[in-house]
Amino acid sequence: MRGLTFQGTHDVRVEDVPDPTIEHPGDAIVRVTLAGICGSDLHIYNAGEAFGFAPGSRLGHEFIGTVEAVGPEVTGVAAGDRVMSSCSVACGECTWCREGLASSCVKWSLFGWAPRVWAHGGAVQGGQSELVRVPLADSTLHPMPEALSGADREMSLLPLVDVMSTGWHGLTSAGAAPGQSVVVIGDGAVGLAGVHGARAKGAERIICLGHHADRLATATALGATLTISSRDDDEIKEAVMEHTGGEGAHVVVDSISGPGSMASAHACVRPGGTIACLGMDHFMGKTPSVNWFDQFLRNISVTGGLVPGKRYFPELLALVESGTLDPAPMLSHTITLDEAADGYRLMADRAEGVTKVALRPAG
Amino acid sequence: MRGLTFQGTHDVRVEDVPDPTIEHPGDAIVRVTLAGICGSDLHIYNAGEAFGFAPGSRLGHEFIGTVEAVGPEVTGVAAGDRVMSSCSVACGECTWCREGLASSCVKWSLFGWAPRVWAHGGAVQGGQSELVRVPLADSTLHPMPEALSGADREMSLLPLVDVMSTGWHGLTSAGAAPGQSVVVIGDGAVGLAGVHGARAKGAERIICLGHHADRLATATALGATLTISSRDDDEIKEAVMEHTGGEGAHVVVDSISGPGSMASAHACVRPGGTIACLGMDHFMGKTPSVNWFDQFLRNISVTGGLVPGKRYFPELLALVESGTLDPAPMLSHTITLDEAADGYRLMADRAEGVTKVALRPAG
Repeated sequence: MRGLTFQGTHDVRVEDVPDPTIEHPGDAIVRVTLAGICGSDLHIYNAGEAFGFAPGSRLGHEFIGTVEAVGPEVTGVAAGDRVMSSCSVACGECTWCREGLASSCVKWSLFGWAPRVWAHGGAVQGGQSELVRVPLADSTLHPMPEALSGADREMSLLPLVDVMSTGWHGLTSAGAAPGQSVVVIGDGAVGLAGVHGARAKGAERIICLGHHADRLATATALGATLTISSRDDDEIKEAVMEHTGGEGAHVVVDSISGPGSMASAHACVRPGGTIACLGMDHFMGKTPSVNWFDQFLRNISVTGGLVPGKRYFPELLALVESGTLDPAPMLSHTITLDEAADGYRLMADRAEGVTKVALRPAG
Repeated sequence: MRGLTFQGTHDVRVEDVPDPTIEHPGDAIVRVTLAGICGSDLHIYNAGEAFGFAPGSRLGHEFIGTVEAVGPEVTGVAAGDRVMSSCSVACGECTWCREGLASSCVKWSLFGWAPRVWAHGGAVQGGQSELVRVPLADSTLHPMPEALSGADREMSLLPLVDVMSTGWHGLTSAGAAPGQSVVVIGDGAVGLAGVHGARAKGAERIICLGHHADRLATATALGATLTISSRDDDEIKEAVMEHTGGEGAHVVVDSISGPGSMASAHACVRPGGTIACLGMDHFMGKTPSVNWFDQFLRNISVTGGLVPGKRYFPELLALVESGTLDPAPMLSHTITLDEAADGYRLMADRAEGVTKVALRPAG
């Protein structure tokens, strides 16, 4: 089959690789119909060797498709079923899975991050490929609702796998509620998901901070009531205060989570408010700081983190089905799997008009 | 009247000072029957000049007493009423007061911290004195329930004013719930309040970390199911895991909030758990750090902060009245107001057997 492999810094290629096979009785093989390139894939693209990625590692944790085959223990899905995959593998049975925190599953691993040793039952290769092996398929896969299983809805569903779930996780962890003010820091896919999710949760004032005119226009289309492109925290604070009746934001979704974004978050958040940290800048050594004086005196909370697998799929699918949510606009480009290296380059260069790239293995 | 004044580092004195008077129509004058020395008073004792305290500043924000006189606009309390005071002044009417966050009141100020310019309607002097002026008395004072207004119950009520409310605030902010595991870092009064509050909230496993055998014995009496005196995070983690079925604590109450305590908090908290920061070590330049890798991968939340005035008085008083809560044991010493300098010294020296000192102006 064709599959995208990491070769080295800024070097990914689509090559002929062996078809995956059922290795454990709980495995499924999924034929991928649409896969996404995630901002976190760019960390591998930019510095994969630092994370232990060897040439030949297959990438990608966002994919939807059709079940091709299942192992003898799989009962929840069958060959021919249209499915969404969680971006990470989970058992569905341990304490953490039962509590809705599949990201802390004792058998957790992340598709496309096989070299990081988290793998359960053999390396979990990526889904930017024609076929992918899905371990613990009963808990890792989620059947698509019939009404959304057509090819015409794939663009609306793919973002749910990770970025929309991640934005929703931040908003949910922070207790975002109808009528509130939400500031979203960052205009990448997770930021746009925060904006779109805030609207679905009934926030009245939704402010997106970013530096790309095209993405901020998408933010407005997805629900932002104000966009701010300033890099000056005093200016940002003034604009946020003006838009929120002088009170600041109940919830700040920080999709970057680096030193600068956390300082902006403290500038925007209201007393008693919550900052949801969803970014991975700290993985890159850009460590954010809590303003402890502010945290203490104004009772600021910090929450968020790695998305707990498919926890939010049912409610997000219901919102898509009802028309309340449609994250398709955050996918700015759809190209063939064989063109995937161009997709990585476009996203890494933050090229004008590029937010998120989807890959079609079928061409 | 007699009142305790700050004179300089490690120098507080009880002197004759002018009686306070009604300065604004919403003021009340309270005759103090019992006042407390708070751990935060020690920050002034140790470094008051750094915070702008001039010789003569009167200290103390924990007091209960009897209303002596009220201004013409006061309707909620009258001369002769037995009252508990919030440790801070609040208006009861602004957005933040209405939301239960009196610590962010637009008219907020803290008794005994007058030099910090937060004062509303003139300097708000401290309550370690025979009489104290209470601004915005209708919202700052809370009438004692009849059943608890006797002199024999004062030791149970004084801790509610600040430390017990603070511990309860941390537990409440962190969502502590029946059946959970709670770790409390620190065996001072706020730590003991965290332990005692955790029991009242139905926590099943309550672990107190500290380094004073006498205080840890009090922690056990107030509800701790395990005490740990190790300073080694690996040892602490092992003991916590053993006591919590290998899962860690749902809630960590960090009554110190410095670099060491936050590292211990990350070692003790379970995936999806919450660290409530209640300490003020960061005011002293000992800035804690979030372990961001842990925060992100395990979805750890950080919450807590300055206690929102008298918000918890009604529920805490009900718990004292029902016998579920009795924080009196955290007051290790009761001395006369004239002996207050000895009380500061005892607490600052962390002398054996000393947890918290109460002062009786009446002798």
